[in-house]
Formats: sequence, structure tokens, C-alpha cells
Amino acid sequence: MASQVAGRCEDVLQYRFSDIIAKKRNGSVLTPEEIRYMVQAAMNGQAQECQLGALLMAIRIRGMDPQETMTLTRELVASGRVLQWPKEWNGCLVDKHSTGGVGDKVSLPLAPALSACGCKVPMISGRGLGHTGGTLDKLESIPGFSSQQSPEQMETILKSVGCCIVGQSGDLVPADKIFYEIRDVTATVDSLPLITASVMSKKVAESVSALILDVKFGEAAQSPTIEEARTLAQSLVNVGFSLGIPTTALLSKMDNPIGRCVGNALEVIEALECLEGTGSSDLRELVTHTGGHLLWLCGKAASATQGAELIAKALNDGSALQCFRAMLEAQGVHPDIARTLSSSSSLCKAPHQDVLKAERVGTVELIRARPIAEILNALGAGRSRATDTIKHSVGAELLVAVGQHVEKGEPWIRIHYENSPLTEKQRQSLQQSISITDRPPFIPTPRIREIISSPVKKEELGTTMRREGEIS
Amino acid sequence: MASQVAGRCEDVLQYRFSDIIAKKRNGSVLTPEEIRYMVQAAMNGQAQECQLGALLMAIRIRGMDPQETMTLTRELVASGRVLQWPKEWNGCLVDKHSTGGVGDKVSLPLAPALSACGCKVPMISGRGLGHTGGTLDKLESIPGFSSQQSPEQMETILKSVGCCIVGQSGDLVPADKIFYEIRDVTATVDSLPLITASVMSKKVAESVSALILDVKFGEAAQSPTIEEARTLAQSLVNVGFSLGIPTTALLSKMDNPIGRCVGNALEVIEALECLEGTGSSDLRELVTHTGGHLLWLCGKAASATQGAELIAKALNDGSALQCFRAMLEAQGVHPDIARTLSSSSSLCKAPHQDVLKAERVGTVELIRARPIAEILNALGAGRSRATDTIKHSVGAELLVAVGQHVEKGEPWIRIHYENSPLTEKQRQSLQQSISITDRPPFIPTPRIREIISSPVKKEELGTTMRREGEIS
Repeated sequence: MASQVAGRCEDVLQYRFSDIIAKKRNGSVLTPEEIRYMVQAAMNGQAQECQLGALLMAIRIRGMDPQETMTLTRELVASGRVLQWPKEWNGCLVDKHSTGGVGDKVSLPLAPALSACGCKVPMISGRGLGHTGGTLDKLESIPGFSSQQSPEQMETILKSVGCCIVGQSGDLVPADKIFYEIRDVTATVDSLPLITASVMSKKVAESVSALILDVKFGEAAQSPTIEEARTLAQSLVNVGFSLGIPTTALLSKMDNPIGRCVGNALEVIEALECLEGTGSSDLRELVTHTGGHLLWLCGKAASATQGAELIAKALNDGSALQCFRAMLEAQGVHPDIARTLSSSSSLCKAPHQDVLKAERVGTVELIRARPIAEILNALGAGRSRATDTIKHSVGAELLVAVGQHVEKGEPWIRIHYENSPLTEKQRQSLQQSISITDRPPFIPTPRIREIISSPVKKEELGTTMRREGEIS
Repeated sequence: MASQVAGRCEDVLQYRFSDIIAKKRNGSVLTPEEIRYMVQAAMNGQAQECQLGALLMAIRIRGMDPQETMTLTRELVASGRVLQWPKEWNGCLVDKHSTGGVGDKVSLPLAPALSACGCKVPMISGRGLGHTGGTLDKLESIPGFSSQQSPEQMETILKSVGCCIVGQSGDLVPADKIFYEIRDVTATVDSLPLITASVMSKKVAESVSALILDVKFGEAAQSPTIEEARTLAQSLVNVGFSLGIPTTALLSKMDNPIGRCVGNALEVIEALECLEGTGSSDLRELVTHTGGHLLWLCGKAASATQGAELIAKALNDGSALQCFRAMLEAQGVHPDIARTLSSSSSLCKAPHQDVLKAERVGTVELIRARPIAEILNALGAGRSRATDTIKHSVGAELLVAVGQHVEKGEPWIRIHYENSPLTEKQRQSLQQSISITDRPPFIPTPRIREIISSPVKKEELGTTMRREGEIS
């Protein structure tokens, strides 16, 4: 059996919830026992909703130190089930987390490529909300794909295929769900310790051996600046190491969309291109580097660079594609579809297309991902509320790449839509999202700008230690 | 008819509650429209409990400026019914609010004394919670007394008697009740703007012409220092003037109990002494000064000093006592009891008494009110939860006064109790609450230390203007 319940019912601590709120309100550090009580009281209903709202606001404003953040993460994990795996998998269980980008289909080629390199990848992913897409939504463009897999089913798939990409089951980190629903409506989402504990608790509950984090920054990311992304990355890496999981964070630029496609079905096709050894170079950069670091972290490569080469080989020789197809079949896709799926497959096609043309001659300087994502969401590609349904065929293909020359009147983006065509306002907004300048053509800088791969030592806590990144 | 509903259902404002939380979280000033929406959303259930908790915490930490505080007060008032009185009472409707003290029975002689001087006093009072007593609890030591009076009944009593002391009806300032219940459990009670809006909204809804505030400071008060009390007083006075109610605040010291009795029935007896023109001088000081200021504010005296003399006269000549007795009768007390009630009446006597003796010779320097109040509460005189019931006979009589000489072994306090006698720990704690020194006997300094009687001008807002107090 692949899991256990970590309840800790034995702790009947005598605290008043309002005293804990007052302590954090005053900017004091909460003890591990107080944090444990806080999570238990949220779980067992002792804490009223208004008290949770007030406490989360106090944490949002006053912060938590690294020790508190680590304790909160650990207690969130203890609120539910923790996955357990066969002993022989120790050391080779890996996962990736991204803070969310536009056109970010990295998980789709990455999980099977890692599996092809001998890892076990119990990847638990999310759905899209706001302007960022969700891995599960993308995979559900493939007929029959099921993201609902029990821990037992996950273990079976990992045994036969080596990787799976599934939704979070309700018994994993249930306290995080309670906190998240309150954070969502109380303006307390953007809290460093709360983001850290939420992300890391889910990964700790997966019982992975090593973890890679893709922390994005830029105008289409949650963190607008590299400084903010660095602070978050350091906090995540600290907690990872504190809880025994070697963790590396990559800081990657998120301004242009990743690759050339945005939208669920279109991104699956692009992921298949990557799995066929072709496709956009920035997508391949992210897949090989995140995968390479993981192979290094779990000892399957002598360096991150060598790891990246192994991942590249798995993409080039078709072994990653075979794993991807086997994973799809194991997760409910009909064998006829799963075994033949390729980038030339016709997958959930939108009935209408609309092509926009460059309004001037010059060099493509920037294609702003956020307005494109927002327009695609309005056309049905994403959700503004968690209960919205998604049109998988809606999306956009970029027909030009950053750094290249374009002529006036040259098509630059193709919009795939279902019912209603683009409004005039949306067309204008799209035209404003491409920036064409007189600069000569250029090769875009790599997306990954910095790597954070070790925790801040105890005596350095409070300042942010980092290693400027040389990308391996 | 004495009231109207001020609903404002017409305002269907399009705000997101979480945006308002985020704005205050960032320390920004909320617009009047946002504050209106905030109160309306709390009333109509659009705001979730967790959102109210988070917003109140953001207000507690970030504060509100005087304009926001005034707007919040006004919108709390608009959440419910506003009392309306006959036009001919304009200018002579007065009330008092105290921030809560130990042995504070000032309202009992004050309301009838003001009535005897020609005012109308629609006094809405509260119950005791924590270590401070409640005026209604005290009055309910008198058999038959009913604090539940509708606005229509209040008007009838004011017509015939001139004063009433009643509980708050549910349709007055209902939004304050919602906020208060959340503040109580979310560590957001001690917020200057929230205290100000809560206190002042109830007084504004009473439609009084002038208001006096007794803001206490010291070890047995909510505000330990005079600086804190001054800040609160200035905030209260600002809102009073902004909303058209001339308001004066007295800053009074709360370390020793007020008068010589603590406990509900005992305090009624002491109030009767005051109404008979005798009794403790500090109680009489508070009654004549608060009353004197009100008479001045509503034009019934040429100065606060002259006002205090008129109040003293009403206490001395029995006219205040007559009003008090008439008020009791109008509020349900049997005429035979009401018409003869005096300080020598036997009222709700405790079956047991215990006398503690001075442990050394010297001068009484201090009798610490807070530990005495806490022990009396433990014996049943007060409440730790709003639902607790009260033993009206439980209380303490001080047998010595601050500044006087005592011999070793001289009785200094008499405890009245019902079932269980004092524990050894309580006796020790009581003995520690009296401080006897070698200083020669002295006359205690007056309780009232400072008077704040004008609002801070707009251009001065942010700094705290005050007038050092010369007591009139």
C-alpha cells in the first residue's frame, strides 16, 4: 500500500486561537506547538472562519521566519495522507513545480523524459486559473485521459511506465485546501510563507527524493521582478532542504510565451514536437535543464550539464515519447490513440481561425504573453473561476519568433476559436502585444537566468544567499 | 414615533470585497463608498466571515485616518434604526459614555441629576464583561427593574421622568454587533478606529445633542497610559464633532476603585448615597464634573464649573433622587420599593461576609482595583463570557480610603460572598492589592486629569492636539 494517515490526534493542546492571532498580529514568532495547534484547529473546526481570515492576514502582513515557514509546511503535510513508495524507489523519485506561466507545457515532455532516464515521477499537477494554464487541462485535450488516479493506481502506473501526471486527491494536505480557499478571498494569496508552505507541503506529501522548481519572473509571471522570484525560490529551497528533500530552483524569465503555442490542445501538439526531438528551442531548454538538474540531484548524472544531455538524448531517440504514450494509455487513453499520437495528429481542432498580420517591418522584440493569455481566456481557453469549463481547442499559434525579421503584412499569430470571433478591442490588444523595432535580428537570451541550489545556512537566515547562475 | 429605519438599500455598489481588503492590507485609505460597501456587505451577507476577519485585522494593523473613522461611524449608524425625538427636546438630549472602570457607578446618579437639571437622558448602557462592571447589571440588583425598553417606551419615560437607562435594542447599529462579535475572537478589539466607530455609532444613533466621554487610563483601565487614553479621547471627540454632536472627553485615572464599593448591589447603595448628597468624594467629583460639562455643552450652564454646581445642587436637594426613584418605577420597579429606596435599604444581601485586616501600620498609598475586580468576578460578581449569569449580592466594601492612616490589624476590606469563601490564594492576592507606606497621610489627587473638548482641525489631523487640563 502506498500511503498512511498522519493524523496526530494525540495532540490536545490548550491554546486559545485568538491568542495566537494576537501574537502574530504583534509580529512575534509562533512556536512549533502554536503552529501545530493552528493547523489542527483549522482542520477540526475549533478555529472559526473569521479567525482563520484574521490569522492569515496577520501572517500576510507580519510574515513568518524560515523556521516558522518550515514548521507550517510540516504541519500542513501532517494534516493528511503521505504517499509511500516501494523502498527500491528511494533516491529516484522526482518531481517538478512551476509557479505558472503562459504556454508552459514543460511537464508534458519532462515527466516521460525523466522516466526514460530511470526516474519515478509521481507528478501531481493543477488546473489553470487566471492567465496561467494548467497541465491537467492540457492533457485532458486528449480523449479519454483521466487525471483522477488513486495512490494505489499511481503506484501501478509508476511500476509499469515510470511516470504519471495526476490531480491532487482530497486526502493529501487537506489543511492547505482550507487555507487556500480562505486566502483566495481575503487578499492573502501573495504571502511568501503561505505560498512556500502550500507549494512545498504538497511535494513533501508526495515523498519525492529530489525536487526542481521553476520560479518565473517577469510581466506574465506572479513575481514581476527577479528579486521577488529569488526571495520565493530561496524560501522554497530552504524548506525543501529542512524537510530532507534536495531542492533546486531555476529562475526563468516569463515575458514571451513559452514555445510557439498557447492553449490546451495546441500545447499538447507542441509538447509532442518536443518529445519528437524538434520544436521550440526555449521549451527544449527548460525541459533539458530542469530534467538535467533532477538527474544530477538524484545521482543519475555526474552534473546538471550531463543530466541535460541525457534528457536531450531521451527526447531525440524516442524513448521519452514512448513513455509519454505508455503513460497516456495507463491513464485511460485508448491504445489506438495513445500509441500513435504525434505532433501531426489532429487533436480537438477549433472550427475557426483568424490570422493577424504585422503592422510594420522590423525585428520582433517582444511578444507579450499576458494580454494574449487574457484574450484566449476570454475566448474560453482558461478559467476566471475554479468552476468554469474550458474549451480545449481554443488557442494561439505564434507564426514568428522573438529576434526574427518580419515584413509588414506578414502573418504573426493565428487564433483558434470556437463560437465568437475576436472583437475589435481584442484584435487591437493583440496587435499591441507584439513589439517590432528597428533593431537588427538577434538570438534571444536563454530563459533560465539564475539557479538557487542550496539552503541559506542558519546563521545567514534573514539575508538572502544566492548563487548567480551560470546555467549548466 | 421615536425612530426610523435608515436602510440605504438603494446603494448597489459594484466592489469586490477582497479588493477592499487588499487596499487596506497595503495601508491605503478607503474611500467613503468603499467603507459603505464594507458595512453593507457585512450586513447583507455578501462578505464572508473570513473576509470580515481579514479586513478587521488589516484595519487593526494599518489603522484608519480620522476621515475613514468618521465615515465608518456614519455607515455603522446607517446600518440600522436611528432614534428620533420630539423637536422641542432639541439641544437638551445628553448622554455619557465611560470606557469602563472598577466601581464605576457614575451613570446611576448622573442620569437623574441631569434630568433634574432639565435635560433628557436616553442613556443606553451595557453589561459588564471581563474585570469592568456594567450599569445594567447594577440596576438589575433592584427587584423588578427592566432594562428592555422599546424606543417608544423610552420616549414615554423621557416625557414623564426625563431619563432612562436601558439596554441596546437589536435594531440600533446592527452592523456594529456583527463587527464586534468578530473582533472579540480575532484579536482586533484594541483598534483605535474600530473602538471609536463602535462607541460613537451607538451614541449617534441615540440622536443626542451633546455627549461626555469618561476615558479612563491606568492599571485597571483598557488604556494603561494617559497618552493612549488621550489618543482615543481625541479620536472620539473628532468623530463626535464631525457628525454634529458637541463632545467632550475627560481623561480620568483608574487605579483605585471608584468610591468605596465594588459589586452590583453594593454599588447601587453607594449610588444612592451620592443621590442623597453624601458618599465618596471621588464618585461625586466624577458625577458633578461629567454632568457639569454636559450642562455647559447644551447651554444650560454658563460654564462647566457652573454646571457642576447645578448638578451638586440636584444631588443635595433630593431632586436627583426623586428622578432616580421615578425612573425605577417607570422601568418596572414596584412603587413601594422605588419610592422608598435609599442608601439604608436592604438590597440583595449576600449571606456571608469576610473581613481582611491591614498587615502593617502606615498610610494607604494605593488599593489596586484590578485584582479586587478579578477576585469578585471569580466569586460571581461579573462575567468572563457574555452568557455567564451574575450574583448581584457579591461585592467588596473598602473600609479605608486612599491617603488615610491605618493601624496594623485594622479591617480594610469586607468581601460579600454567596457560596464558597475566599481561597487562600485569593486572600493573598487581596492583601497584595493594598499598598501601605510610611508616607504621611495625604489628600488623593482628583481623578480627572485632562479635558479634551475640541476636535483636531483638518490641517492638524495626524498630530494629536489637546488641551492640558485645568479641571473646571
